Amino acid sequence: MNEQQMKIKRNAVASEESLMRIFTAPEAPGSTLNRIEQEISSNLVGFLNENIAAIEKPLHEIEKDFQASQIPEQPTFVSDHANQIMDKLVAHSVHTAAPSFIGHMTSALPHFVLPLSKLMVGLNQNLVKIETSKAFTPLERQVLGMMHHLVYGQDDNFYQKWMHSAKNSLGAFCSGGTIANISALWIARNRLLKADGDFKGITSDGVMAAMLHYGYKGLAVLVSERAHYSLGKAADVLGVGRSNFIAIETDNDNKVNVIAMRSKALELESQGIKVMAIVGVAGTTETGNIDPLNALADLSEELDCHFHVDAAWGGATLLSNNNRHLLKGVERADSITIDAHKQMYVPMGSGLVLFKNPNASNVIEHHAEYILRKGSKDLGSHTLEGSRPGMAMLVHACLQIIGREGYEMLIDKGIEKARYFADLIKLSNDFEVVTEPELCILTYRYVPEKIKQLLLAEGKDALDEKTKLEIYIALNRLTASIQKRQREQGFSFVSRTRLTPSQYNKLPTVVFRVVLANPLTSEPILQDILEEQKGLAISDPIFKKYLNKYL
Amino acid sequence: MNEQQMKIKRNAVASEESLMRIFTAPEAPGSTLNRIEQEISSNLVGFLNENIAAIEKPLHEIEKDFQASQIPEQPTFVSDHANQIMDKLVAHSVHTAAPSFIGHMTSALPHFVLPLSKLMVGLNQNLVKIETSKAFTPLERQVLGMMHHLVYGQDDNFYQKWMHSAKNSLGAFCSGGTIANISALWIARNRLLKADGDFKGITSDGVMAAMLHYGYKGLAVLVSERAHYSLGKAADVLGVGRSNFIAIETDNDNKVNVIAMRSKALELESQGIKVMAIVGVAGTTETGNIDPLNALADLSEELDCHFHVDAAWGGATLLSNNNRHLLKGVERADSITIDAHKQMYVPMGSGLVLFKNPNASNVIEHHAEYILRKGSKDLGSHTLEGSRPGMAMLVHACLQIIGREGYEMLIDKGIEKARYFADLIKLSNDFEVVTEPELCILTYRYVPEKIKQLLLAEGKDALDEKTKLEIYIALNRLTASIQKRQREQGFSFVSRTRLTPSQYNKLPTVVFRVVLANPLTSEPILQDILEEQKGLAISDPIFKKYLNKYL
Repeated sequence: MNEQQMKIKRNAVASEESLMRIFTAPEAPGSTLNRIEQEISSNLVGFLNENIAAIEKPLHEIEKDFQASQIPEQPTFVSDHANQIMDKLVAHSVHTAAPSFIGHMTSALPHFVLPLSKLMVGLNQNLVKIETSKAFTPLERQVLGMMHHLVYGQDDNFYQKWMHSAKNSLGAFCSGGTIANISALWIARNRLLKADGDFKGITSDGVMAAMLHYGYKGLAVLVSERAHYSLGKAADVLGVGRSNFIAIETDNDNKVNVIAMRSKALELESQGIKVMAIVGVAGTTETGNIDPLNALADLSEELDCHFHVDAAWGGATLLSNNNRHLLKGVERADSITIDAHKQMYVPMGSGLVLFKNPNASNVIEHHAEYILRKGSKDLGSHTLEGSRPGMAMLVHACLQIIGREGYEMLIDKGIEKARYFADLIKLSNDFEVVTEPELCILTYRYVPEKIKQLLLAEGKDALDEKTKLEIYIALNRLTASIQKRQREQGFSFVSRTRLTPSQYNKLPTVVFRVVLANPLTSEPILQDILEEQKGLAISDPIFKKYLNKYL
Repeated sequence: MNEQQMKIKRNAVASEESLMRIFTAPEAPGSTLNRIEQEISSNLVGFLNENIAAIEKPLHEIEKDFQASQIPEQPTFVSDHANQIMDKLVAHSVHTAAPSFIGHMTSALPHFVLPLSKLMVGLNQNLVKIETSKAFTPLERQVLGMMHHLVYGQDDNFYQKWMHSAKNSLGAFCSGGTIANISALWIARNRLLKADGDFKGITSDGVMAAMLHYGYKGLAVLVSERAHYSLGKAADVLGVGRSNFIAIETDNDNKVNVIAMRSKALELESQGIKVMAIVGVAGTTETGNIDPLNALADLSEELDCHFHVDAAWGGATLLSNNNRHLLKGVERADSITIDAHKQMYVPMGSGLVLFKNPNASNVIEHHAEYILRKGSKDLGSHTLEGSRPGMAMLVHACLQIIGREGYEMLIDKGIEKARYFADLIKLSNDFEVVTEPELCILTYRYVPEKIKQLLLAEGKDALDEKTKLEIYIALNRLTASIQKRQREQGFSFVSRTRLTPSQYNKLPTVVFRVVLANPLTSEPILQDILEEQKGLAISDPIFKKYLNKYL
């Protein structure tokens, strides 16, 4: 070996050693990695303590830091990488935990979940099978049992019998509400079109063979027009089709009109189209309203179809004895979706679907030779996803550490805060509530008192229809503009959506939408947000051009 | 207010305060939470440094600690909860990072991902939309771009144009390979059965209407008999049906026989059944083999169908310039699945699907009023999942810190180690290799030399068929028993599966399966594992009863 070859060999050995080192747990408290970890932690605390919603930097500017399309050849030091992401990623992340970030369902987390998350990641268990999860499997089954009990309240014998049963599942953990909804409707579809005589079932033979066997001309799912868009995705994926996901009108309170749903269902069935499932929403994404679940349960019995409740947002309300009555009838649902990463304050990635009947998921059961063998307690045999992390551990921790009573307080406070904010809006001369809060979500818009009066005027003072419409369009554009500028300013964040409120003759109306789940959002913060919006409104070019003249 | 009422009020205020406190970032380095975090971290390091695969405790014993089915009413102290899970959960978790845990694809993680995971969880970004992710969105798009480049190697202009384009996506992050495979085949299905004339497309009208419009009698997907079970799930979910997911025989090397696939495809098409997609496997789960991707690409062109490659395991091989030739032809795939949480050493929950054509996912595009508005760069408009965590950050970190060259070394070492282990088995008198390693996976079984000879004997020494079969069955049972007892003993872990190897006349054969991806697995550890298995074999009741007599 000549000198050059020896040098190459030495370098290769050195880089192999440094590569091995990154896989070895650092024991010394003063190690480089521990130092970096402390820096990251203190940066994170700094970030979380900043009470602003976002730093103003346009997306196209941020994109400049993420242009390289080739994986770097050479390794980077951990410390260099950490500094880089602090600067380029963390600094331009959204302060979802800021008390003035009240626009979406992603909120603050209890801080104890951070060390627990690190533990969860470090253990790197894979919940698809016992062989890579061991105690995590019974833990997940217990959390499913507890959540099942929260919804369905069966007795001890029931849970004794089913909670750890190899052949059954009381529900499934999944990455989020979308997968939960798809799982529930997948089960509904497969139960409806199950094996029968010579027909091997939809699982084996697919949608078309199943429809021909059962003689259905089509399948339909009926759901409120306020339902989450994930249900449309479910219709697409499952082969039912989005146009067969039929949106039923809601009443003034954004709750589905069950009479309308019933007549639509009967009309469809008279045409040979089978209603596969009806879906109730418990906490609509945009307005936080809850469908009349008992009436829907009655209808599902009449139609003999699956009854699913999408309670991704509102399900946590069951933890409050003071407010769980809002969801009465939920215990009659065949399946229910609850996102623990929403109002249960668990980190992102903790969706749940629960099944009333422990045998429900048998129609999606599957096995393989190397895992999920029959009789095993592997959780993966009854889930849509395969390999999955142990997020159940974090739900378990929150249930224990916060406790039902703690959750009750959080849920109740959120609802009270939403009522306070609604009152604040009503007292102001410049805003109006568009949808009243039933849970901790409400929508409103900016309308100066004078314009409110003008729009309502009748008789000789009444505006002509054209002017009314112009004002209406201007208000919509103004709301969108205020929301965008407020986001860009970065002190606070509310979201926006478009509704068709009956008090405005179902005209498409752009509204501010707030979700008041962050326990740290205070009344003064809400007052400031209205003030800020008022300032933004008056300075807005749309206001100046189209609305100022009426004042 | 009387004294009793005042006491209740004081308690209420106190518990509200303590509830608020858990949502406030702890600034003091000496805070209780920081102390607990240090304890958890040192416990985690302790756990990760234990070189055993699992502590022996039967599952039914562990289940006793997870019996309660009701959510506790009262809160628990974080420290008490932490102690409890250390004792009842962590102690009975699987040491997936142990160098002697060589049974599954879940391996050791580089330690720098732990502080970064905590950061990711703490930031609690939601990647479904810009408003809850900001810089995480361009970062995720960049990682998708880099992975796309790894597979398809387009030029800079291509990535300049598409990487950050609002209307397109080069791929999607998802929770794992199952969702990745479903997403790819969802796209394949929807592209095939797209809108056409008056027909609004499968997305809108569902499978049955689509089949009637296009005049297909059925749909089929063709795939190797060694394919992952998630593809069967995809067939079920998508309404195609498991029986239309047609398993094609493999050759001796566990690679799909493309000639057989072609004749099956032509047979189906002559019956009016449209081949929707063919799937190549790049790294079969059980044996780690790679299908002839170029030949499959040719076939997909001939059939004019979607070509998907499931490289959940083997995709990382592309990072090694020395071994990427094993996947040649992959750049012709319409879509490819790669799990970063497998051979890319990223924590659980990092699946990826990549699309050759940036417009591919347009057929699954969806919008909503409150997010995913048209023209937005929200990632959620092209994904099966909705809300998702920022796992892309961890893939990004690994790509930077390990670098392509670091990955190359890891991949190459794994393959070398598998070859070493295969040689070791061949040199031993008590084992035989069943499938040779192509990547770092191989299978083998225990067969004493004498019995090997007996089974192979011909002429007058040949065993009668009944005895042969008895021995064969005994060997199968023995392999299963050794694997189970080895797992229970907890020093090491290999998995097992059942194959039908051609060298054994396709008889169902139970084999040990090892995955040699952990960089810390050394040659002495592999020697010990064989020794341990030998010891377990000789002491096994099945061995004593059925095999000993032949020795």
